[in-house]
Amino acid sequence: MSGPCHFVVFGALGHLVTTKLLPALYHLELVGRLDEPLSFVAFARRDWDTERWRVHVNNALAEQYGAHLDVAAARRFIQRFEYVKGDYTDPAAFQHLLARINTPQPGICENVVFYLAIPPDHFVDVVRRLDDAGLNSVVGQHRIVVEKPFGTDLVSARELNAELRRHYEEEQVYRIDHYLGKETVQNLLVFRFANSVIEPLWNRHYIDHVQITVAEESGIGGRASYFDRSGTLRDMVQNHLLQLLTLVAMEAPASLDADALRDEKVKVLRSIRQITVDSLNDVALRAQYEAGEVNGAVVSAYRDEPGVADNSNTESYVAIKFHIDNWRWRGVPFYLRSGKRLAARHTMVAIRFRDPPHQLFCDTPCENMEPNWLVFAIQPEESIRFELYAREPGLSMTPRLLRIDTNYRAEHEQPLNAYATLLMDVIEGDRSLFIRFDEVEMAWQVIEPVLRHWSQTSERLYSYAPGSWGPKEARALFEKPYQSWRNQP
Amino acid sequence: MSGPCHFVVFGALGHLVTTKLLPALYHLELVGRLDEPLSFVAFARRDWDTERWRVHVNNALAEQYGAHLDVAAARRFIQRFEYVKGDYTDPAAFQHLLARINTPQPGICENVVFYLAIPPDHFVDVVRRLDDAGLNSVVGQHRIVVEKPFGTDLVSARELNAELRRHYEEEQVYRIDHYLGKETVQNLLVFRFANSVIEPLWNRHYIDHVQITVAEESGIGGRASYFDRSGTLRDMVQNHLLQLLTLVAMEAPASLDADALRDEKVKVLRSIRQITVDSLNDVALRAQYEAGEVNGAVVSAYRDEPGVADNSNTESYVAIKFHIDNWRWRGVPFYLRSGKRLAARHTMVAIRFRDPPHQLFCDTPCENMEPNWLVFAIQPEESIRFELYAREPGLSMTPRLLRIDTNYRAEHEQPLNAYATLLMDVIEGDRSLFIRFDEVEMAWQVIEPVLRHWSQTSERLYSYAPGSWGPKEARALFEKPYQSWRNQP
Repeated sequence: MSGPCHFVVFGALGHLVTTKLLPALYHLELVGRLDEPLSFVAFARRDWDTERWRVHVNNALAEQYGAHLDVAAARRFIQRFEYVKGDYTDPAAFQHLLARINTPQPGICENVVFYLAIPPDHFVDVVRRLDDAGLNSVVGQHRIVVEKPFGTDLVSARELNAELRRHYEEEQVYRIDHYLGKETVQNLLVFRFANSVIEPLWNRHYIDHVQITVAEESGIGGRASYFDRSGTLRDMVQNHLLQLLTLVAMEAPASLDADALRDEKVKVLRSIRQITVDSLNDVALRAQYEAGEVNGAVVSAYRDEPGVADNSNTESYVAIKFHIDNWRWRGVPFYLRSGKRLAARHTMVAIRFRDPPHQLFCDTPCENMEPNWLVFAIQPEESIRFELYAREPGLSMTPRLLRIDTNYRAEHEQPLNAYATLLMDVIEGDRSLFIRFDEVEMAWQVIEPVLRHWSQTSERLYSYAPGSWGPKEARALFEKPYQSWRNQP
Repeated sequence: MSGPCHFVVFGALGHLVTTKLLPALYHLELVGRLDEPLSFVAFARRDWDTERWRVHVNNALAEQYGAHLDVAAARRFIQRFEYVKGDYTDPAAFQHLLARINTPQPGICENVVFYLAIPPDHFVDVVRRLDDAGLNSVVGQHRIVVEKPFGTDLVSARELNAELRRHYEEEQVYRIDHYLGKETVQNLLVFRFANSVIEPLWNRHYIDHVQITVAEESGIGGRASYFDRSGTLRDMVQNHLLQLLTLVAMEAPASLDADALRDEKVKVLRSIRQITVDSLNDVALRAQYEAGEVNGAVVSAYRDEPGVADNSNTESYVAIKFHIDNWRWRGVPFYLRSGKRLAARHTMVAIRFRDPPHQLFCDTPCENMEPNWLVFAIQPEESIRFELYAREPGLSMTPRLLRIDTNYRAEHEQPLNAYATLLMDVIEGDRSLFIRFDEVEMAWQVIEPVLRHWSQTSERLYSYAPGSWGPKEARALFEKPYQSWRNQP
């Protein structure tokens, strides 16, 4: 159970809070994980009061859960909230917030979480105002939660961090990557290290290559103003995809202690072979979606999206190959790709094992017999799938490929909102699944040469049909003729 | 497709032929695997003719298949049969048989199978008469199929083989062990060698121990006259259980060629550490079932079964531990057990992997977290089951044991009679799944010290309750405190 806590949400009226945070926190209420004296403070600029806010929360939950809403739990949940109106730069609002938090109530301690669900431009404002108001004084008891993006490149990330560190210790900063809250992402760790039969296979001797795919069906929607400045490399690869890569590639940590775990993740990032200008075009590829028709609907080309410059070079698709130069992975390529307007929405990690060294059962050459794959489907499907051969039923000794699923979730078990786990961890002060600054820093460093090069040239910007699996040129990343993108989880 | 062939069954009116061979051959007819000019000859002592025999076949199939019988296929099948009445020692009967086989028919070649579905006492008689009648002249075209038991100990097996070899080459002798016809037994080979991810785990570094269980619910039934002279060690361990052991333990063969495969099996048997008189009581254990009640029915003690001597020392249960002294298996015990009147009928091979060297996910010691198991359920259930951990759905990073089944057979796929595969192989002349004499010989040699010792003493003959999992003393075979019999497939 969590301890008593104030949980302050900045940007409480934003999309993220309504669609992710409120349902996640409500879930924690529902399963009895929120302690009695835990209270929430919603901080936003709109001229509302606590009653108005509570109606908003109620509506948001009703909309999401409909008839499944547990009315008693929802009532308990809503009662925990107070609303503070204020601007992120207004000292008076922060005094008001301080007063709210200091209102003496029996059982309330000095345990406070500040959740910055606000655009990154405002991070520094809020942090400074909190400091001015004396709201960051108790090291380790006050925690600040920061959403991505954490900077826009290596330099800006270091600047942002320096500013944060002026007011908070590293242990107080919870950099969130909601992919780490996904249960099947955490399954990468459990599957690798709770079984004795996986780790022996988990290296260059048995693994041919690794593919990490984060595919989206949708375009950039209304996010052009953010996305066109960012692009897929910044928006997806630097955080989500590289996080998945570290979980696949890391050595076994000494413990699940936050620093033990993150030390290993950083070690992976440090072992990634630096991309050079010479190698760049062989290992990284960008593209934009074309106009076309998807499921009967006409969709714009990326450059024709409202808010995107006509001559924008921002990539809506990235494919990139990493080599990890260590004893475990030397020679095993990690192929990562992410894009919008692709053929399906799914996130997966696919491990392709080497072919058996000798084919006993078939006259066809190895290349024609599918290899073993282990696929972690992360979203929307959640499963661990092993593709193994067994004997085909019948008279002859012929192998048949079987897809063995873990049936990760039993019928009655509902998928968790990824934020539920992470928010519980914030409340309880467990930093394992949050990103330490050196991870952020190394992740920027890994992609920095590509970011820089792409910002300087409009050459080699490919295009792809909407609803496809990306540009055909992405094929060129593969090192072996038998390797190709796996599109099925 | 099979070539043209005469298939002669001696002992055609026996239980084995009615319940196993006829349905298996009918299955081959049904799936179109029997060539047009293939004919069957039923040879038996009863004073029947072909018409009477065909009625018998029809009745046997009708009883087994009921409404599912394919009438057209059954008619085609029955028409292939002729009946020859004769005694196994009567030269005239064999001349009659010769005449049948030599009856000129277009397309019939000199390809003849003699299937000895007769008690072993008669093997030699039949073989000699066949020789006298000139029916074993064409090497490689005439084949003789021999059912177990092949001898009753090392000496008698050698004598029997010497006699057979006076009339046939080794390549003409098909020693059948119907366990090798079971699809899930063959799956041991396919699963091990068609996947690249199994073989790396298949050794002393990752496997803690192996268990092979052939458990029967029934008692000895009407087989006392045979069984009380034989016992479980001869009847089950020398053949079925040691065959399963060789398939689990063998090195990858150079090919699936009969001799390449059987060379590897013999190599395993040769590597089994010889049981000595000193070690014997530590590695082998026998028992008889007591009187009791099973599923509400009163059952006799083994010694009270009709036909069993009051002072019989014949074991109805064996547990035995083997060590295979080679690079792959040194230090990995193979625990085998087989018995009658046990709690359930099932055959399985269970591989227990070592514990992970480090437990990341739980505070309890390794011993309390179940290890990974790989279980080949062979009968009556047919599956390959992997027990692996994945993250338990929910808020915390807790491993949960998942049983992942291969769903070996799709809904519409019917289990095959184990004989169908083997008979097809006989007809096609594929010896891979038949036992070469050096296998038989080595298997006898492996158990010979135990056979001899048990025949000389009535000491340490344990007992067990019917419907139990055997004598509690069998526990003592295990080398490690955490090891125990796995009773669930």
